[in-house]
Amino acid sequence: MTHHTIKERLTLVKVGGKIVEEPASLKQLLDDFSKIEGYKVLVHGGGRSATALAAQLGIESQMVNGRRITDEETLKVVTMVYGGLVNKQIVAGLQAIGVNALGLTGADLNYMRSEKRPVKEVDYGFVGDVKEVNAGILADLIAKGVVPVLAPLTHDKAGNMLNTNADTIAGEAAKALAQYFDVTLMYCFEKKGVLMNEADDESVIQEITSVAFEKLVSDGIINGGMIPKLENSFEAIRSGVKQVVITRADQIHTEGGTMIKA
Amino acid sequence: MTHHTIKERLTLVKVGGKIVEEPASLKQLLDDFSKIEGYKVLVHGGGRSATALAAQLGIESQMVNGRRITDEETLKVVTMVYGGLVNKQIVAGLQAIGVNALGLTGADLNYMRSEKRPVKEVDYGFVGDVKEVNAGILADLIAKGVVPVLAPLTHDKAGNMLNTNADTIAGEAAKALAQYFDVTLMYCFEKKGVLMNEADDESVIQEITSVAFEKLVSDGIINGGMIPKLENSFEAIRSGVKQVVITRADQIHTEGGTMIKA
Repeated sequence: MTHHTIKERLTLVKVGGKIVEEPASLKQLLDDFSKIEGYKVLVHGGGRSATALAAQLGIESQMVNGRRITDEETLKVVTMVYGGLVNKQIVAGLQAIGVNALGLTGADLNYMRSEKRPVKEVDYGFVGDVKEVNAGILADLIAKGVVPVLAPLTHDKAGNMLNTNADTIAGEAAKALAQYFDVTLMYCFEKKGVLMNEADDESVIQEITSVAFEKLVSDGIINGGMIPKLENSFEAIRSGVKQVVITRADQIHTEGGTMIKA
Repeated sequence: MTHHTIKERLTLVKVGGKIVEEPASLKQLLDDFSKIEGYKVLVHGGGRSATALAAQLGIESQMVNGRRITDEETLKVVTMVYGGLVNKQIVAGLQAIGVNALGLTGADLNYMRSEKRPVKEVDYGFVGDVKEVNAGILADLIAKGVVPVLAPLTHDKAGNMLNTNADTIAGEAAKALAQYFDVTLMYCFEKKGVLMNEADDESVIQEITSVAFEKLVSDGIINGGMIPKLENSFEAIRSGVKQVVITRADQIHTEGGTMIKA
């Protein structure tokens, strides 16, 4: 269904675990986030806290390609940490500054359904690949002034929670919400943007088109974990997201960061 | 504001921790709960899981008058267990059988605000006494077919989560929702109802009025933890809740249990 009406702006901000797991940086983030005009959504990680709790419980955290291997005990840990501790600290923090936040996992309102990742070379365990996003009910809430705070958890609609990467949650939610809003997706990470020179934090590339991306990859300037991040960004743009920005959390109100363009 | 229209029925079921913490009894409960006709809300505990996690983390669980002393570390534990693990297992379980569940703490949508309990003889720590219930936004969601699943957690609207007894959450939510619905509040516990003779599980008192209650207390038939439970029930009735039933979870579809009447 195509909407021909003018859509209102929605900003979806994804922040990693580190920034939301330290009280001072969390407070600053929530202040900055609360000042974003228009509709907004926050997606958070929480990996450091999950690793810390797992360690306290004697559960070893196993990572493959930056993804957590999620066995049954680890699934409990991430459900507690992402869905409980981190999510509720953010929600309570936003409510304190007048933002009507609502914490959600994919199971809540069945807004994001996934399937357990098939076992190939790696058995990731209880990790969910997103299959369906029911954005309509989210869009209704957002239009009423509710600000969803999305934890990196989904469910399989067969009674099981599943662990899903926060970047993926952000991208999938942004794409689905693009039916209803003009969506800007902001991926925040520890650098000011995509760098031309990894050794120089100020060498931020202001804008990357898909053509430029191919060249930057073949020239070896963009590599490693930045490649899937940018591939996700281009996919979001192709799926109707208006703009994607890769930036640092303290820059969400500035023109800083790298703008991804079709 | 008084509504003069005929209200629709809403059943609010409160279940303790034990039943939701064992997979088999949880599954049975969710099946029974899903079959309740009309609008519904589920309120859950989770104390046993909180105590177990606290023990694994080397945190001693201190109880006074059946209430958990909630220090800073314990607050994290209950936020993880009630708001994360137990709540999401219930929500995912309900979604699996077609119930559009939404897990909430008091911070979510700011639906229940509390204040940290003043220190008198006992310092309960981060325990919240309910001050405000914003039932309107819940009522809107319920009318759309959403089934709230309420964890025993509130917030102070100053950024802090607080631990609030599940019976209290149930009573306060029922009273606030009574503005919008004909509310039946069902408190489930391990007995079939209020007993005439504690040694005889079949000696269920079918109906208790406030007059009968006074006499049963003065005769020593009702005592201990049942007194506050019944006092809460009468307060709910006086505040507009249509009926309160004290029963066992496997009886929520039967005429069993004790009916509390004004």
